[in-house]
Amino acid sequence: MSGSVAYTREDFLRLDAEDQLAAYRDRFDLPANTIYLDGNSLGAMPAHVPERFERILKKEWAHGLIRSWNDADWYPAPQRAGAKIAKLIDAKNNEVIVADSTSINLFKVLVAALRINKDRKVILGERGNFPTDVYIASGVAELTGSEVRCVDPEEVLDALNEDVAVLSLTHVNYKSGRRYDMAKITKRAHEVGALVVWDLCHSVGAMPVELNAAQVDFAVGCTYKYLNGGPGSPAFVFVAERHFANVDQPLTGWHGHAKPFDFDHDYRPHPTIDRMLVGTAPQLGILGLEASLEVFDNIDMNLVRAKSKALGDLFVALFDQHLQGLGVELRSPREGEERGSQISLSHEQAYAVMQAMIDRGIIGDFRAPDILRFGFAPLYIRYVDIWDCIVSLREILEQRIWDRPEFLARKSVT
Amino acid sequence: MSGSVAYTREDFLRLDAEDQLAAYRDRFDLPANTIYLDGNSLGAMPAHVPERFERILKKEWAHGLIRSWNDADWYPAPQRAGAKIAKLIDAKNNEVIVADSTSINLFKVLVAALRINKDRKVILGERGNFPTDVYIASGVAELTGSEVRCVDPEEVLDALNEDVAVLSLTHVNYKSGRRYDMAKITKRAHEVGALVVWDLCHSVGAMPVELNAAQVDFAVGCTYKYLNGGPGSPAFVFVAERHFANVDQPLTGWHGHAKPFDFDHDYRPHPTIDRMLVGTAPQLGILGLEASLEVFDNIDMNLVRAKSKALGDLFVALFDQHLQGLGVELRSPREGEERGSQISLSHEQAYAVMQAMIDRGIIGDFRAPDILRFGFAPLYIRYVDIWDCIVSLREILEQRIWDRPEFLARKSVT
Repeated sequence: MSGSVAYTREDFLRLDAEDQLAAYRDRFDLPANTIYLDGNSLGAMPAHVPERFERILKKEWAHGLIRSWNDADWYPAPQRAGAKIAKLIDAKNNEVIVADSTSINLFKVLVAALRINKDRKVILGERGNFPTDVYIASGVAELTGSEVRCVDPEEVLDALNEDVAVLSLTHVNYKSGRRYDMAKITKRAHEVGALVVWDLCHSVGAMPVELNAAQVDFAVGCTYKYLNGGPGSPAFVFVAERHFANVDQPLTGWHGHAKPFDFDHDYRPHPTIDRMLVGTAPQLGILGLEASLEVFDNIDMNLVRAKSKALGDLFVALFDQHLQGLGVELRSPREGEERGSQISLSHEQAYAVMQAMIDRGIIGDFRAPDILRFGFAPLYIRYVDIWDCIVSLREILEQRIWDRPEFLARKSVT
Repeated sequence: MSGSVAYTREDFLRLDAEDQLAAYRDRFDLPANTIYLDGNSLGAMPAHVPERFERILKKEWAHGLIRSWNDADWYPAPQRAGAKIAKLIDAKNNEVIVADSTSINLFKVLVAALRINKDRKVILGERGNFPTDVYIASGVAELTGSEVRCVDPEEVLDALNEDVAVLSLTHVNYKSGRRYDMAKITKRAHEVGALVVWDLCHSVGAMPVELNAAQVDFAVGCTYKYLNGGPGSPAFVFVAERHFANVDQPLTGWHGHAKPFDFDHDYRPHPTIDRMLVGTAPQLGILGLEASLEVFDNIDMNLVRAKSKALGDLFVALFDQHLQGLGVELRSPREGEERGSQISLSHEQAYAVMQAMIDRGIIGDFRAPDILRFGFAPLYIRYVDIWDCIVSLREILEQRIWDRPEFLARKSVT
């Protein structure tokens, strides 16, 4: 399909009929009459997860009790889940481990990077990055006497110089969906002697990520978006094997110890990725995540990326065809290669517009001050969902359906 | 009952018949033919938890999807669960929040304490404390240019001087079960101008803890032992309200921000205990914990403590009566007031002895190098369990049942 064709709903139904990933949708438990375009915030639930939890709870916890740490193989769950994620991001199985939250993992690797590159003092970041990444960098800077320098995305390459100890970027921006060229930027950072941390929250599970091909040093990411680990499921951290011996992370909890059950008085970091662990693993969350990740067993991430790009390209084409003059602007890159798996539009009443969409069962989200955000999780979004979303959005805008007290009154979160 | 009486099993059955807390046992799903004396490591599962998880998974996650953060009241879960714990530890509802792991929460409060007491450089700890507490203090010291000074338990009062920025102790020792006099030590620390952090892992849920009566500054604790939150359930942190404005914790993630959903570029800590949050809450774990904590609604913690002490005292009495000359020594305080809710014995083949006990369905645990540890969770342990445990232990020791290859071969954990 090209952008100039006037599409019909039948075109989208045909694409679904031809979709090689279509069967994946059946592996999820999705609510009826709902188009869920917010899998980039909280992924949908794989249908087999509740049964797995029932076993974990009734058999492993209630009846296995403490024995399950050994007998049900609870101990190696952070490594097992890490190895499953490793396959999706071009990492070795032993280079990824599941632990804590993205923010906390970022703290660990930023301090570790500053300790490796100890003659330099600058953490280079992006001004529009997801706030927690900048906040954590600031917290690290305050503790370590470093400096956080933030620039706009197009200034990153030029800002890389020999002051920079570590560059910390998010692969796909949470708001615009803009995707960095990981290989090019990592290469440039290494040329000036900087280490690189990539936050994969908005890319892992939606596209192939080529960490080792790009010789990335560190990465972090969450598992509750495209990996469908459930609300607040634990995050992961990647450390390139070449750095294992030199990673000196500051959250020195007992599970990162070389021999946790020797109960030594002195801390001695584990020789492997296990040194990134801190306290007792959030075990229920990890076991649930491990179950969810089975959906990705043997998947072809190139197919996932191709569908993701196609969904986004079609969204843009329909935007051009149906939403002109209705007060919305495209705020994501037009070019699929430059985008993650989401499209953002702006509207001066974005909050109310999104409430009106949700009222019709089409769920995206709002990001302050004026962004309507639509995410395309390729495993369970249908092509026809894109069509139906745009048609509804057009009606809501044309007829000003958003202009009702119940949509305008903003619910406060926090 | 006094220690000199020769008890019979009937005495213990009578105590169970008279036990005011006996009905609590029915609220747990426990395996048949098992005496579970390891609730101090992983608490048993409250029987209503799986049904709650089914609702959380199938209704709130799968069908509510992202809407559940508001519609199912997911956002305030860390505060709600914190308020439930607050009631058990003499804290105000707004002084406790659930977040991350004990190790990570300890990191936050130790750095915060050093920043408040900024002219001092010493973290005072205990040589035999649970290792992660010492490891984390060392990690904090390395980052902040402070010093960790560890002394033996009986030296703590004398070691408190005007060098000490913060005293970090565990209320009940994981290995010996020895309990500190929280009020006395906190008072002495304040007299020399030190702040105090108490780790409540081995006391919360097994006894009343009097944080505000003792004017404690900070506390941390896990929820998977006597609070029965499940494997790896998230930890909690207490900050005395008088410190809120001055707590500058270094893990500055977006959920600790005054307005997380404004997505500001600059970090501004939340004015309340919420500033102790970091990344997205481990939501499934918190919601599960919240369900588990219902067991403690309207409980009288003095009754819990009385039963806990009685179970321990009887264990000691039976040890005296039945285990003399069998190679085991008592390694916990004889005096109930000086103990938490566990008893440790030593034996040179402790690992094999515990394996032989577990083989009979009596589950305690082993702590290197020679400790047999028995925990008494007063909500589901019966008096007769103490009798049956000692009788089995006597047989295993007398008949050297532990001396078999399958018990001697040590399973490696980690």
